[in-house]
Amino acid sequence: MNQTDIFPSACHRWGIYELAFSGKTSGNPYLQYRITGTFCGEQETVTLDGFYDGDGIYRIRFMPSYEGLYTFSVSGSFSKQAYHGSFTSLPAVPGCHGPVRVADTYHFRYADGTPYRPVGTTCYAWTFQKESVRTQTLATMAGTCFNKLRFCLFPKHYDYNLNDPVCFPFEGTPCDNAGLTEENFSQANCSCLGGREIAAKTNHWDFERFNPEYFRLLEDCILKLAKAGIEADLILFHPYDRWGFSDMTPEQDERYVRYIAARFSAYHNVWWSMANEYDLMPQKTFEDWERLGRLVKSLDPYGHLLSIHNCQAFYDHTRDFITHCSIQRTDLYLSSEMTEKWREQYKKPVVLDEICYEGNLQHGWGNLTGKELTRRCWEAVCRGGYPGHGETFLERIPDGSAKDRDVRIWWSHGGTLHGECPPRLAFLSQVLADIPGGHGLKSIHLNWDEVAAVPDSPLAEEHSYYLVYFSFMAPLFRRFHMDDETWFEIDILDTWNMTVTHLGKRRGEFTVPLPGKPYMALRLKKAERSHCDDAS
Amino acid sequence: MNQTDIFPSACHRWGIYELAFSGKTSGNPYLQYRITGTFCGEQETVTLDGFYDGDGIYRIRFMPSYEGLYTFSVSGSFSKQAYHGSFTSLPAVPGCHGPVRVADTYHFRYADGTPYRPVGTTCYAWTFQKESVRTQTLATMAGTCFNKLRFCLFPKHYDYNLNDPVCFPFEGTPCDNAGLTEENFSQANCSCLGGREIAAKTNHWDFERFNPEYFRLLEDCILKLAKAGIEADLILFHPYDRWGFSDMTPEQDERYVRYIAARFSAYHNVWWSMANEYDLMPQKTFEDWERLGRLVKSLDPYGHLLSIHNCQAFYDHTRDFITHCSIQRTDLYLSSEMTEKWREQYKKPVVLDEICYEGNLQHGWGNLTGKELTRRCWEAVCRGGYPGHGETFLERIPDGSAKDRDVRIWWSHGGTLHGECPPRLAFLSQVLADIPGGHGLKSIHLNWDEVAAVPDSPLAEEHSYYLVYFSFMAPLFRRFHMDDETWFEIDILDTWNMTVTHLGKRRGEFTVPLPGKPYMALRLKKAERSHCDDAS
Repeated sequence: MNQTDIFPSACHRWGIYELAFSGKTSGNPYLQYRITGTFCGEQETVTLDGFYDGDGIYRIRFMPSYEGLYTFSVSGSFSKQAYHGSFTSLPAVPGCHGPVRVADTYHFRYADGTPYRPVGTTCYAWTFQKESVRTQTLATMAGTCFNKLRFCLFPKHYDYNLNDPVCFPFEGTPCDNAGLTEENFSQANCSCLGGREIAAKTNHWDFERFNPEYFRLLEDCILKLAKAGIEADLILFHPYDRWGFSDMTPEQDERYVRYIAARFSAYHNVWWSMANEYDLMPQKTFEDWERLGRLVKSLDPYGHLLSIHNCQAFYDHTRDFITHCSIQRTDLYLSSEMTEKWREQYKKPVVLDEICYEGNLQHGWGNLTGKELTRRCWEAVCRGGYPGHGETFLERIPDGSAKDRDVRIWWSHGGTLHGECPPRLAFLSQVLADIPGGHGLKSIHLNWDEVAAVPDSPLAEEHSYYLVYFSFMAPLFRRFHMDDETWFEIDILDTWNMTVTHLGKRRGEFTVPLPGKPYMALRLKKAERSHCDDAS
Repeated sequence: MNQTDIFPSACHRWGIYELAFSGKTSGNPYLQYRITGTFCGEQETVTLDGFYDGDGIYRIRFMPSYEGLYTFSVSGSFSKQAYHGSFTSLPAVPGCHGPVRVADTYHFRYADGTPYRPVGTTCYAWTFQKESVRTQTLATMAGTCFNKLRFCLFPKHYDYNLNDPVCFPFEGTPCDNAGLTEENFSQANCSCLGGREIAAKTNHWDFERFNPEYFRLLEDCILKLAKAGIEADLILFHPYDRWGFSDMTPEQDERYVRYIAARFSAYHNVWWSMANEYDLMPQKTFEDWERLGRLVKSLDPYGHLLSIHNCQAFYDHTRDFITHCSIQRTDLYLSSEMTEKWREQYKKPVVLDEICYEGNLQHGWGNLTGKELTRRCWEAVCRGGYPGHGETFLERIPDGSAKDRDVRIWWSHGGTLHGECPPRLAFLSQVLADIPGGHGLKSIHLNWDEVAAVPDSPLAEEHSYYLVYFSFMAPLFRRFHMDDETWFEIDILDTWNMTVTHLGKRRGEFTVPLPGKPYMALRLKKAERSHCDDAS
């Protein structure tokens, strides 16, 4: 039987070619039946699984990595039939550059070769908020420079996160949350976890039956991010849990991972983050993470980026299924300043997903000033890594009242931004975008203590670009002597006030005046020098 | 012959009992003749050398550590005669507490038991400036909280330090300094040293003949500091030299050390610092420092504090002749934050003599903001160390003109202070002075990331005092639960705006509101709770 005429005839390169089939509903379709497809173009042949989407519908999703004619065949225990057909992969829609890949060891680019320099932020639980808040989060993102958003695939239980999500990933009912208040949950000296003990025993879930509505909601969020040009850094597991999702059996974990991979892999903007703070989950062993990480890698035919995020103990980021370092700072004072060390140690891109947040919480990770977070982001960039933003502002001190349940904090709920850092990161992003060679930087030793950097790309001309960042230091001037021949265009960048002051061209020994304030940078770009202005 | 009637009949405890004698002048008295005395009181017998002070006069100086009757005898090759006599050691003059000693491993107190908590500053070359500047330096010091001043016994050659000193330690003539300008000396990429190469060969010194005028000037400075209650942290050797004083032979070094010890040991406020940045002196070996350090210790009958200050490589501060750690930060980001590590490593007091300076130089060690230096000083105190201040402000960018020679920077020349840090350190000193038990603090782990500390003294009652410092963090509140019984008086300290806000008494679980700004601290002092105000 040939059914091509009822299947879509085309999709765009790096878009989703999705097929839907009616299939078996007896027993538990999530457990009992499988749907598998093979998609064959001139340059690739991909075999992958589909998934049961409820109501008797099975779906299979494929992302073509090339243009041209593809054929497919779909079969499996879900149906007595096998299906065959073909479609055309059209040029990518404008603005879609395909998945992000690692490039030149420490950097990234999109599949079509376009530079990608991540400046991400985090809203752990934004997808679980009511629709108006989700809409607001996306609108806020649109007004920022952030091109990556990190969030959890499971709901979150933590300080300021005591409400239930809008829906749940499994059929069943959650434990009662009515008695939970900031006052009784967040004790003076221990508020970090505790959810597993609080209420996990009164959950009633059928871990063998997914709730498709939950995953459709996540897909909607991923898709909206894709349309906005934002990478979706999906956290598969995390410890902040009162519902038991962090305590599933290895078989349940695997089924969950297979379901996630089948549903989400075809979204070009997906990144896999195996866990947030994996090391706060004693219920999982190193072998569990290895097994689950390799499973995700094996199920994802597109090679999406894959990482695992620490709390105190770094995962061994040299493991072959890990594509890049997703780092949380583990020292109170040193965070992005250690970027070179981590590059050297892991030989992979260093993404500093948590270097503390701008905010005013009592938690040390959530009460940086905008100036300090901006400084850390500049340190990251100048040392050859990529910074991550987060924001944790409370408008009032929690007092245990019902109002505490309405608190909305960007770091978890999304919503709106209140901090001083985001516009400064937009300024930083502009500086990043201007670096020759398509990547970011690597640090070099120039003099004294400032952080000096040059482009870290084989495409960048040597000795053509320098960025010198003074961080917390506040010099009144800086003398240079690069060589006697090369003319440089000199820009003073005020990284806090977001101004660029062009000083003109200099060569040989020269002095650059500075304002004696912190957070200044200098940019030296090799200039073509004409005769007429050779007098300086 | 008995000459008691021509010798002073009394001095004060910890004052200087000085005897002057005419003696031999033939040949070279500095080299050829010795004067030795023994001073005997009820509780001590001290034998020490005097020194030749020029013009046929030999002097010997003794500091009595006790009250009561002392006898003495003085003899030596300087004279055919021997001298005997006695004097009365009277109670110390008001405000004089004797030399500072190490107390309880990590702290200090004066010989009379009075607490001493160092908050020092540095003016390396203040003694070599013209008199009006020296006077200004002392006047400035009088208006600050600084109770220790670090400075060099040899003149200094370095950026902004190209002028000759007002006089020299030896007979002879210095190399020509007329050709030295900031422009030609301080090259863009290397300005640190270079003095040895520049001009050392054209010096003409008789290292066998001291210039007493030079040492009298230093004594005058030490004495004026003593009268102001300020410890004089004397740096015996340093690498910033174009005159050859860092390149003397071992015999010349030893003669210099013996002369210094004979002249200065009797000043109660003297501390010995064997070197500034000893590790920048390749002309001296580890064995040289060991020999010279032990020599100073052996020549000083009073056990003045003795240290050796690093640039990059710490000296082994566990060496027995070293009384405390005199530390320069070696990391761009971490300085006083490492205090606990150094306490643990060396088991001696940690004095952070250089954690960079407030200023605007291009040198990374000299361009901190006042806020950052103040923060580092608070970190030092809360971690059980003692901070050191320094200031390096330029009013204009050096341009190689003659005016550059007139630059006056507190860090080296003394003069006046321009920074924002000194009044904040006065506030910090007040907080320090209020800590129970007579010493400073030691850090403890309370919660999250703030720095928490308790008194580090066997005399302090346990659980009676906490200092919690939030450093760069900016929380909106902090919840506490120390125990259910103890009442604490709560003060919010704004370490930058120098305010103390008293919140009243709290016990059990309580929330302290904070302004969501950096540089805040909380002080919890155990309170006696009366019945009438038991209602909070």
